Order: sequence, then C-alpha cells, then structure tokens
Amino acid sequence: MANNHGVVFLGPGKVEVQSIDYPKFVNPAGKSIEHGVILKVVSTNICGSDQHMVRGRTTAPKGLVLGHEITGEIIEKGKDVEYLNIGDLVTVPFNVACGRCRTCREQATGVCLNVNSSRAGGAYGYVDMGGWVGGQAEFVMVPYADFNLIKFPDKEKALAKIADLTMLSDILPTGFHGAVTAGVGVGSTVYVAGAGPVGLAAAASARILGAAVVMIGDMNTERLAHAKSVGFEPIDLKKSDKLEELIEAVIGVPEVDASVDAVGFEAKGHGQQHETEAPATVLNSLMAITRAAGGIGIPGLYVTEDPGSKDEAAQQGNLKMRLGLGWAKSHRFYTGQTPVLKYNRALMQAILHDRLPIAKIVNATIIPLNQAPQGYTDFDHGAAKKFVLDPHGVLKKAA
Amino acid sequence: MANNHGVVFLGPGKVEVQSIDYPKFVNPAGKSIEHGVILKVVSTNICGSDQHMVRGRTTAPKGLVLGHEITGEIIEKGKDVEYLNIGDLVTVPFNVACGRCRTCREQATGVCLNVNSSRAGGAYGYVDMGGWVGGQAEFVMVPYADFNLIKFPDKEKALAKIADLTMLSDILPTGFHGAVTAGVGVGSTVYVAGAGPVGLAAAASARILGAAVVMIGDMNTERLAHAKSVGFEPIDLKKSDKLEELIEAVIGVPEVDASVDAVGFEAKGHGQQHETEAPATVLNSLMAITRAAGGIGIPGLYVTEDPGSKDEAAQQGNLKMRLGLGWAKSHRFYTGQTPVLKYNRALMQAILHDRLPIAKIVNATIIPLNQAPQGYTDFDHGAAKKFVLDPHGVLKKAA
Amino acid sequence: MANNHGVVFLGPGKVEVQSIDYPKFVNPAGKSIEHGVILKVVSTNICGSDQHMVRGRTTAPKGLVLGHEITGEIIEKGKDVEYLNIGDLVTVPFNVACGRCRTCREQATGVCLNVNSSRAGGAYGYVDMGGWVGGQAEFVMVPYADFNLIKFPDKEKALAKIADLTMLSDILPTGFHGAVTAGVGVGSTVYVAGAGPVGLAAAASARILGAAVVMIGDMNTERLAHAKSVGFEPIDLKKSDKLEELIEAVIGVPEVDASVDAVGFEAKGHGQQHETEAPATVLNSLMAITRAAGGIGIPGLYVTEDPGSKDEAAQQGNLKMRLGLGWAKSHRFYTGQTPVLKYNRALMQAILHDRLPIAKIVNATIIPLNQAPQGYTDFDHGAAKKFVLDPHGVLKKAA
Amino acid sequence: MANNHGVVFLGPGKVEVQSIDYPKFVNPAGKSIEHGVILKVVSTNICGSDQHMVRGRTTAPKGLVLGHEITGEIIEKGKDVEYLNIGDLVTVPFNVACGRCRTCREQATGVCLNVNSSRAGGAYGYVDMGGWVGGQAEFVMVPYADFNLIKFPDKEKALAKIADLTMLSDILPTGFHGAVTAGVGVGSTVYVAGAGPVGLAAAASARILGAAVVMIGDMNTERLAHAKSVGFEPIDLKKSDKLEELIEAVIGVPEVDASVDAVGFEAKGHGQQHETEAPATVLNSLMAITRAAGGIGIPGLYVTEDPGSKDEAAQQGNLKMRLGLGWAKSHRFYTGQTPVLKYNRALMQAILHDRLPIAKIVNATIIPLNQAPQGYTDFDHGAAKKFVLDPHGVLKKAA
Repeated sequence: MANNHGVVFLGPGKVEVQSIDYPKFVNPAGKSIEHGVILKVVSTNICGSDQHMVRGRTTAPKGLVLGHEITGEIIEKGKDVEYLNIGDLVTVPFNVACGRCRTCREQATGVCLNVNSSRAGGAYGYVDMGGWVGGQAEFVMVPYADFNLIKFPDKEKALAKIADLTMLSDILPTGFHGAVTAGVGVGSTVYVAGAGPVGLAAAASARILGAAVVMIGDMNTERLAHAKSVGFEPIDLKKSDKLEELIEAVIGVPEVDASVDAVGFEAKGHGQQHETEAPATVLNSLMAITRAAGGIGIPGLYVTEDPGSKDEAAQQGNLKMRLGLGWAKSHRFYTGQTPVLKYNRALMQAILHDRLPIAKIVNATIIPLNQAPQGYTDFDHGAAKKFVLDPHGVLKKAA
Repeated sequence: MANNHGVVFLGPGKVEVQSIDYPKFVNPAGKSIEHGVILKVVSTNICGSDQHMVRGRTTAPKGLVLGHEITGEIIEKGKDVEYLNIGDLVTVPFNVACGRCRTCREQATGVCLNVNSSRAGGAYGYVDMGGWVGGQAEFVMVPYADFNLIKFPDKEKALAKIADLTMLSDILPTGFHGAVTAGVGVGSTVYVAGAGPVGLAAAASARILGAAVVMIGDMNTERLAHAKSVGFEPIDLKKSDKLEELIEAVIGVPEVDASVDAVGFEAKGHGQQHETEAPATVLNSLMAITRAAGGIGIPGLYVTEDPGSKDEAAQQGNLKMRLGLGWAKSHRFYTGQTPVLKYNRALMQAILHDRLPIAKIVNATIIPLNQAPQGYTDFDHGAAKKFVLDPHGVLKKAA
Repeated sequence: MANNHGVVFLGPGKVEVQSIDYPKFVNPAGKSIEHGVILKVVSTNICGSDQHMVRGRTTAPKGLVLGHEITGEIIEKGKDVEYLNIGDLVTVPFNVACGRCRTCREQATGVCLNVNSSRAGGAYGYVDMGGWVGGQAEFVMVPYADFNLIKFPDKEKALAKIADLTMLSDILPTGFHGAVTAGVGVGSTVYVAGAGPVGLAAAASARILGAAVVMIGDMNTERLAHAKSVGFEPIDLKKSDKLEELIEAVIGVPEVDASVDAVGFEAKGHGQQHETEAPATVLNSLMAITRAAGGIGIPGLYVTEDPGSKDEAAQQGNLKMRLGLGWAKSHRFYTGQTPVLKYNRALMQAILHDRLPIAKIVNATIIPLNQAPQGYTDFDHGAAKKFVLDPHGVLKKAA
Repeated sequence: MANNHGVVFLGPGKVEVQSIDYPKFVNPAGKSIEHGVILKVVSTNICGSDQHMVRGRTTAPKGLVLGHEITGEIIEKGKDVEYLNIGDLVTVPFNVACGRCRTCREQATGVCLNVNSSRAGGAYGYVDMGGWVGGQAEFVMVPYADFNLIKFPDKEKALAKIADLTMLSDILPTGFHGAVTAGVGVGSTVYVAGAGPVGLAAAASARILGAAVVMIGDMNTERLAHAKSVGFEPIDLKKSDKLEELIEAVIGVPEVDASVDAVGFEAKGHGQQHETEAPATVLNSLMAITRAAGGIGIPGLYVTEDPGSKDEAAQQGNLKMRLGLGWAKSHRFYTGQTPVLKYNRALMQAILHDRLPIAKIVNATIIPLNQAPQGYTDFDHGAAKKFVLDPHGVLKKAA
C-alpha cells in the first residue's frame, strides 16, 4: 500500500510518471489532521489549466505532482470523518476548502480563506494554490473530507457511468458556473468562447439549463467538428474577426442573451489575427455580441501576472479591455474559480438519471496513468478529447 | 368583420356558442382606450380554471363570454400602439395587465393594480377578474397591447408550431411558474400533483429546467397513462394514501427536492378517500414529501370562498392545513396567478428551437369553435386532452 | 472545573437551577467527537420558545437542561478544532449543525440532516431537537465548533457590548430572517405580529434593512408601550379585530409591503376574541393586510401536533388557514427555524459598529443564573423584557 | 405658456440659458405621441455626467438643451395617459423608457430598446441618448408618462421635502444601484470611490442598506471634509497610492466587503499620480481592496470611445484593467446606466418617512435657472455641492 506513483512536472513541456510519496494525514504546513481521507484514485483527468503550468506560463516548481480532477475510493479515514466510510466511492471538487471559514459557509468554496497561506482559494497539484499534493496518482489525501466529498449513492451504478461522473471534479461544474453566472436559462441564446473541454461543458450546461440555441466558437477545426457532432452550433473564428456577423448567420440577430469565456488569458486574435496572442480579445468580443442587460460568465482563467506573454501590458496582468462597450449595455461580469461544491450534487443527479451525457460531449478518452505524458502532448496540440487517467485499471474493467 | 361568435356560459354545466358583440376599443368601465388591438383569434384553449365556473363553483354570471387562452392576428390597433402592426401574430397572456402600475413594473402582472376595480389582477372572460370579454371567440380586444403582447418573430414558422405556441397564453407559463417557484433546477427530483394540462406543463417545465426525475400523481387512469407515454413517472394516488411510499418506490427515498400543486381547492382525498373532496389534501401531502429546505409551488387555484363545497370550513375558504409539517422542514410556499409575461418570451424561444414539445405533452386536440361545448364536457370528464379551439380554421389549414 | 449548574425543566410550570454534569466531548448518541469545544458560558438567554416547553405544551421530558441562546469563552477544544483557540469569546447559533451535509452546505443550517436522529434540525436544550444538552448553565459543549462558532474579533470591545451580542445566538437572526424572507427592504412598510423579543428583533431588523415604517401589533399594553419607546408604531390588537383598519390609521392605506409572524401557534384572537386561542388568526390577518405580490415571513413556531390545544383541529396540527386570501394576492410564505449562521456575522458587524442597539430594543435584563426560575415566570406573564442569564457574573462585571 | 427657457450647450466650457421651444407631444423622430405629459419643471439638477459633455469630452452637438434630472408638475397630458392627472407632482427617471420592450419589462429601463435609434437606452438632454429634449428648462415633455413617472402621494408634504425628492431622478437611485450591485447589505464594510454627489449618494445608500462602515475616497479636500461632516469615513487618496493601507488604517483590515466606482473614465491616478488621468486606476484599486467573493458596482460612466483622452489606449476605449486581480478573488462586476424605476419608489418612501436625508448628504444647493452657468462652473471646480435649479421659484417659495 505504501507504494505510489504520480504525474510530476519537470519543467516546461515535460511531465513524467514517477514514484512519489504515499499520502499522509498532514497538511502542507506539516500539521497532523483528523479530517482527511486517503483515496485510491479511480479516475483523474488532465485539465486545460494544467497546460498553463506545463507550457511554462507560470512559476510552477519542478517536482510538483499534478492533478486536481479526482474521483476515488476511500481506503483510510481520519478520526474526525463521521459521514463517510472505507469503501465509499466519492467525487472530489478541485477546490480544497475547509468548510469552516466565512466564504466556505457562503458556498464560495473557490476562495476558501484557510487552505492557502498566500491567497484565497486552494487546489490539488497546482502552483500557488496552497501546496496540496496532486491527484494524477494512484493515491491521494483529501482534507476536510466530510465537507468536500460527495459519495455516489450506488457504487455499482456509479462505476457504470464513471466516465461521466469523473467530470464532476472540475470541468462540468466549471462550465455550469460559467453558464449560470452568464444568466443562461430556459430559452436563452448562448455563445461559448472556446471548444475545449470546459467550453463543451459550458455548452452542455447551457443545454440542460434550457437554452434554445448554443453556439461554440473556436479556431480548431477538429474541436469545432466535434462540437457540431454533439449538437452545438460551431462558429469558426478563423473565418471573420466580426463575431457578431458569425452569430447573426446562425440565429438571425447579432446578439446573444448570455455568453461564456471558456478561454482565458492565453486567447488569440480572431480572423486574420488568429496566430497572435491577444489576451483581451475574447472579453471584448463577448461585450460586442452580448445583449443589453446580458451577463458574461468568465470561468476562463485570467492571471495577476503573465511574465511569459508577448504582450507587454499583459506581462503585468493588464488587459486592454474595452469596458465601455459592456458598460453601454449594462453588462455584468462574473469571474473566478468555480465553487464546485455548489453544483456537483445537482449535476451528479442529472448524470445518474441520464440527462447529461457529458463523457460523450467532451469526448472522454480513457488512458492508463503511464500514458499521461502522451495525453498532455496530444491535448496541448488541440486534440478534441478529454483525457481521463485510469491509475488502477478500474475504468478499463468497468467499461 | 362586425360579426362575432363566442363561447357563452349559461349556467352550471351549460355553455353555448352564440353570436356576441364585435369588440370595441373600450374598457369594462366604458372608457375609450388608445392602447388596444383587435385580434382575429387564431387559437384559444379550454382551461381547467374555466371548469370551476362551468361546474357552478363560482359566482360567474350567465352570459359571460369565456376564454383567457388566446393567440391571434392583429387586425386593428389603437393610436397608442407603437410597436405592433396589423398582421402580426401574437400570443396573449391570460392576465390583463396595464404595464404602468407598481406591480406590473415589478413583473408581477398577475396582480396588476389597475385593470380590475374590485381586487388586484385581471383576466379575460373570468368571474371577478375585471370584466374583460373572453376570447373563446372569433374576435377579441386586448388592451395595453404593446405591453401585453409578444409577436412571433416569423409568422410562417409560428403557424407551423401553433399547437405548441398556443400554450404560451396560460398553461405552459403557469406550469413553469409552479416549477420555478418550487425551486426546481438542474438535478432536482420533482413531484407534480395533478396530471391535467397544467400538471403536465409543470412536469414539462421541470424537465426543461433540468430536473433529474419528474413524477406526476393523479387518480385518473387515462391521464396517468398519457403522462407516462410522454416520459414522466406516473404515481397512482388511488393505490395508497401514503404518498411518501409511492414516491420512495420510484426514487428510493420518500422525499423530493421540489413539489408543485397543480390541483387546487377542488382536491379530493388520496387512497380510500379518493371520492371525497378534501381541499387541503394536496398541500398537506406535499409538505409530507418535500425535503427540508425545499419549496412548494402552488399554481393550483385556491379561493377566498367556496360556497359550493361540502366541507363547512372550506365554504368560508378555510383549509385544514397542517402548516406545522412544513414549518418543521423550513418549507416555503408560493401562491397566486402566474405572471405570464415574466416567462412567455423564454418559453416561446424554447418552443421555436424545438426544445419543448408542449403540444404533444399535453395532448393538444384541435376542435372547431362550435364543438367547444363538447370539449368542455369531455374535459370535465377527465379526458387526457387539452382542447384547442380553432375559430377560423387556421390551425386546420396549418396542420 | 468539573462542577456545573444549569436550568432544569421539572414539569409544567416548573424549572430549577440544579447541579448537572460537566460537559464531555461526546454526542447524544454517546460517540466520542473531535470537533467540539467546551465553553464557559458568558451569557445565555431565556427564549419564548423555551416557554412552550415550560408551559407544558410539548412532550419535553422532565430533567431536560434548557437553553439554546449561548455566548461563551472556549476553555477546552477537541483535536479537530483548527481555527478557534482557548480564550476566544464566541457566539453560538441555537441550531446545532454539522457543516457537512447537503442542507448545511446550502446555508440551511436550521435543518441539518446529521445532528438529530428523528428529523431535520438540531438545537441545544430542546425537545425533539436531537438531545444536545442545553446551555442555561455554567458550562456547555458545542460540537462542530469551527463551523458553528463565530469568534468576536476583539474580546474587550465585545464584552463592552455583550448585552447586544448575546442576541446573536437566536432572536436577532430570527427576527432578521423573518424580515428578510418577508421581503423587507429599503422603503418598505412593515407589520410585525407580536411585540415579544422576537417581534422586536424583527422590527429592529426591518429598520436596519431600510424600512420606511415599522408597526408592531400585540395585546400586551406593557409590551406595546416598550415598542413605542424604542421607535416602532404600536398597534393595539385589543382595539379591533380589523387589523387593516388599525394599519390604515397609521400609514393611510390598509396594506403593508411585508409582514412577519412573530407569534406562532399559541396565537389568540384579535379584538373581542383576545382571550381565546385561535392558532390561524395571525396568519389569516397577515394575508388580509399584506399587499399583492408581498411576502410573509413566519419565524413564529408552528407545530406538527399540539395536544394541549383547546382547538380540536389544532390538536392534530391543523390550522384553519384562509389560504385563498393569500393566493388571490400572490403571497409567498416562508417558514421554519432560522439558519442563524447565514446572518449572525453580518449582524455582529452591525452591532460592533453601533448600528443596531438590540439590547435596548428588546430591553435586555441581566439576572444571575440562580434567578432563572423567576425570569421564566416574569417572562411568561408578559414582562416587556428579554432575560439574560449571567452564570459567572461576567456581564455584571463588564457593566 | 408657450414661452420656455433652458440651459443650452454652446461648446466646450460654455452653457447659456436661452429661449427654447415649448415642448410638444412628438418624439425625436417627429412622430406624434399619445402617451406624453408636459411638465412645469419644479426642480432640475446639474449632474456630473453633464460635465463630461460641457468639458468637451463627448461629441455633444452645440445647441443641445441639457438636463436629465427632473421633477415637475403635470400641466398637459396625452390621450393615453390614464393614471396621472393635471396637477400631479411627479419624479422623472433620467432614463427615457418605453415600458413595452423586453428590457423594460424586465426592469432594465436603463437599456430600453425603443427610445434610441442608435443603441439601447435613452435619456433627456444627453448626447447619443436618443435626442430627447433636456429638462434644465421651464417646461419639458416626458413620454410614456404612465410608465415612467411616479406621483408623490401628498403634494404638500412632497414640496416640503423637495430638495431631497429631486435626487430621485438620478443620483440617489444611481448611488443605490451601485451599492446594491456591489452586494452591500446589513453589516457590510464598504468603500466608495469618489466623493461627488453620486459617491455621496452611494454612501448614503450603503448606510440605509445597513452597512457597518462606509468609507469614501477622493482627492478633493473640500469634498472629503463634507463627506466626513455627514458621517462617512473620508479616505484622502492624495496621501498614498496604496488604497489597501488607507482602508486598513480605518477598519483594521485591508479589504472591504463591497466597493463602488462612482468616478468612471475620467479617473486620475492616486497618491503621486493624482494629476494624471489614469482611466483604469479606480477599477484596479477596487479589485485590490475588495474581499474574495465580493462585488464591485460600477455606476461611474465608462465610454466606448474617448477621443479627448491623453491616454492612447483610452482614446479607443481601452482600459488597462488588471482583471486577473479580480479573477483571483472571484469578483463580480456590474456596469451600466441605473434603471431608476427599479428603485425610486422605495427611495421615495424612505425619504418621505425621514429615513434618508439625501439633500443634506449631497449638500443640495438651490439656485435660480439663470444661474445655471455659474453652477456648472463651480461644480466643475469641485465644489462640494449638488446644484438644484429652480426654474419657477417654487423651491424658494417652499423653503
């Protein structure tokens, strides 16, 4: 049992599966804790936000064990874990949250005040997010387990849908948060920027929220084709830098009710500019196409500093935002890490009752843990897939 | 043009299609108005709430022209109608609303303060609702047209879906209001009391709002069978007076997240008591089966007085409510006429984009205006149908 | 330290201060817990809901240690208490809540699913609320301390305002919840039924929420006089059974924007009927005087069964509610135990910054623990006072 | 009666009171309308947003009649004005709104879709806002009167408080909208950027919403002194460019719960930079000082283009926003013109019941119409006053 392997960041462009420490009931400050569980990781996904680190766009240190999208089975528990038991199959929100501070009490678990000594908000296996060990591994420790974890009510049924349920740890709630904060509701027309997994999850969320039409924009042909194959309207951003015209061609008017930025700070220009980084492009285009009194959800990551950017202002975290465009239309903007726990129970219910085939929508692709490096490479090259690691072969067996 | 025919209430159990006055631009107080339009009625539905009157459970006067579910084409307009034109095909909310008072400004158009001299809220063709002439007719006048009406953006497409769109005037928004106020959202488990058209519309609404499971309870075998055929879980209330057990048999737990009362004051007992009126039965049973912190939406009509009731307390409008049941679970209760205008645009979009096949769900059944009396009779006998009148044969031609 | 004394219920009309067990880190099921703290009780108040038990209207067992309004200093803590320390001065919500279940995560701590084996929701020292030992005592154990407790940021300043801050454990949040759920906001006209401490707290809450006018109705002359002396408009219910007329005499119209029921199931009739219990009187009168589209907050307790009632229907928990009155006006109704933790931090800030002189408003009256029996008697007789027990003489010293 | 005079913009820095046309019942497109009223203007205020035009920072044409803050008495009404009468004293929202479009129905009257042919949203006497004639005049026409106007219930009482009530047309609701959208509630700590009239109104709004502490930052010594004199905590931005330190000095922590930008695009740098325009300074500083999960209300105007700016990016409407700062804290941002009608009734009630002494707070200073040019000059120089014009001497007489 004391053996463990995980995906380790070794510098820009380089990750490896290595032997790592078996988890212990201690927090990053070295203090013993009573509220944790140790999970045998059943599935753990590669995330677009991992790519920011692996590409070298952050200050992530070498040796970091990656992975914040985790589903697992409890194999050990601390003394103060009262409502979970050994053998429970659970979904882990990517946010580490204490469940005891002001923001956690208010359901804002994305900015927990206690789990990260340098700022609000914690996560597993992520730079600047509190030092919690990542879960792209065989085993991982999850703190504040009673608060953070949701047990699947029926283990067997859950294993049968595990490729869907594994998306509860991050991208499905993240896409959902984007759609909800953008104000998507029954009958909405919606535009999602970015056809990667979070964009697709936002689109799937818009659909289950009752949206009338869901469009997804990207410049990656393969991703657009996949988006179309699962029922969304693809918008090819290489075709024009006037997003409003592309929108109008689909729905007859150049504006949508709600829009979601599932791209973030590594955005590139539209149309002719599609090779150039242009970090405010997405936001400015969303202001152009969102109706008066509409909302813009921004689950895509924006950073306080981006030293790797070619744009000078962006290096200091400055975006050239045309806020006046949005102001003239009374737009509202929601930013930040998704508080997964606010949404994952509801989304689990939707999956378990066959209403949300998210695995198919994001094209979940299961690979063994030791193929993680190839998964990172393929994903970085824009594969229209969401890679799910299977450290113990449980998913292979379940399938 | 000056010819008109409509469905007229002639006393308990009796309605007839008679010649009636052609509409004029005057309000019930006899004052000339500038803000009205005259519609050629394209479709107009028989509603369960019409039945309360026709059964003689209200003080509706003989001679009342019935009908508050209206869709039509504008053939005349007043001087102060600026944003609608002759020829527009429009949906009419059943609420008459001025768009100028405090409650209308707050979207509470179900309790407009200006259109009914005796209380808040107006409607077409309904007792105590302001004296506005009903629309189960060839022609009808609609006041405050710019505010009240929504024009279908494409007339031809709208006619192709007219059996769905006709439900926007009342039952679809009413069911939706029930579901929304009950707190239905993505992943919710939902119980709807009553498998009539409003119950089915509430169930359809719950589904498009993302509900995981939607159950509908009734004692009418035909209606339950229809509910099942369109994808809802039927609950046969004749089988037991313990609703919690019936619920548990379907979803494994005896409680739902949200529940909707689509029955109202003419409720009968469950199980053995199903022949007896028991006006608080539905509400008490919903408190029993709704989870702690859950909501109960009450679109079903409750009246201030019910002289026709066999229950003495009910005659004075008193219900024997076990409010303590709900209090112990922190329930919240929403009552009242639905403010249609708050929802109908969004629902129209959902219909036009093929997300809400409401005609099929409520089993829309189109009949000519002159068969209205038979429609009333069949509906009163519990037919699993929603009758849509076709005064000018437009629906027949469109079909 | 191992010595303890508390207020013990000994049967209808009888309480005594007795020697009781010193608290231990075990829950009512006898299980050892890691998440608790032991408090030296600094203040603990007698509550109107204690009176229901003491009057013999419930099945409270003899020997029950009373008290759910607790403020104290931490003198011991369990291993899994991470963010509180010995010496911290804390306010305790009357609800026992685990902070780990679905409803707690949603801020509905009034209906925690884990702390009471027989139903949702727990409290200290209360019948049917989970068996947690009450805090009208020298020492008390509080479970899930990191989640439940709020530490006063500055102990000295807090002691200087302790007669205000002691109201955070129950009545101030309870009154606030009533006002908030009734929809009170800036400019509202508000009616509060009941001039006891919760009613006064609701009135104070309405005022800080920005209400334009706050009226309080009661039949107790002394309480009305006190309400007037702290700035509210008194409504003497002995004068008329037409509440709308009494309201109109104050504000010129017979309706208010929002109303709060701070009375509950032991309500008596208005006007001539003021000696007779009439459990639905308050609710029915609030429907009569609340405007269309208005809300009714119901923090007053309604019970599932009331064997002590003289009203037969009420014995089975049935109220003769005229729900149709409210339905005709699209009223919404909020019931249930207040989730204190949703509000107490904000209210603490308001107190600490001199915006909410709640001690004065409810006429906080500090007495030693051993005078608790007299406090119960005086309060039951309708004294216009809120009794605060001072088990260790800390308040006396602070004053 | 056919005589009229108004304040006319004659080019940068120049306004004059001139003879202007007496109003007619026609809209800017020249179409006759039935829904308007003509007001004898009782009071009309000079607004900070007028200054943007007068300073030459916009494309406002010479000859424009200024004025969008209007209170008046109805002296004529169109045929379709049903609920207002000659002689009524009314408050006019600065937004022109039709009350008939989708956004007006949703209470978003700041972005009405029908009253401005070039974009969403209309106003009186303002560039690019639809061409409606301004109300810094003796007489003005107000369209859609039944929808837009609120009648003061008691004319005499209203005249006694007219210096307060005149603020309902714009700055009080605008400040309130800023506070509400920032999430200000009971117990909040609040920072308002800008101690001009809108900033003071936002501060007053925060107070009546229950805020625990309200700070106002500015660089104008006179305005800070006035803010302090009416009970707010002044923050002198000339003292430091680290706003967090100035905040911490007042409340002990460097963050507030909610913040409001009452400055907009003409912002200048803080500390050493206080002479230089730096259009994103306020927004960036608010992200720095607003707590995680907090909100930022932005009633201050941001423009789509600002050709007069010295900052090149700003000329094209680009702000150098450090959005990553806010994203890391899960901030939300609300922008746009305030929908006055959503708030003015409630605020009127608060004023009439002596809860909101806004005239004193903003230092209302009444001057005759013909002194308007001097008012513009003094206000532009930073006088700590809100100038109220008195075209007919009614205020002078009332005082």
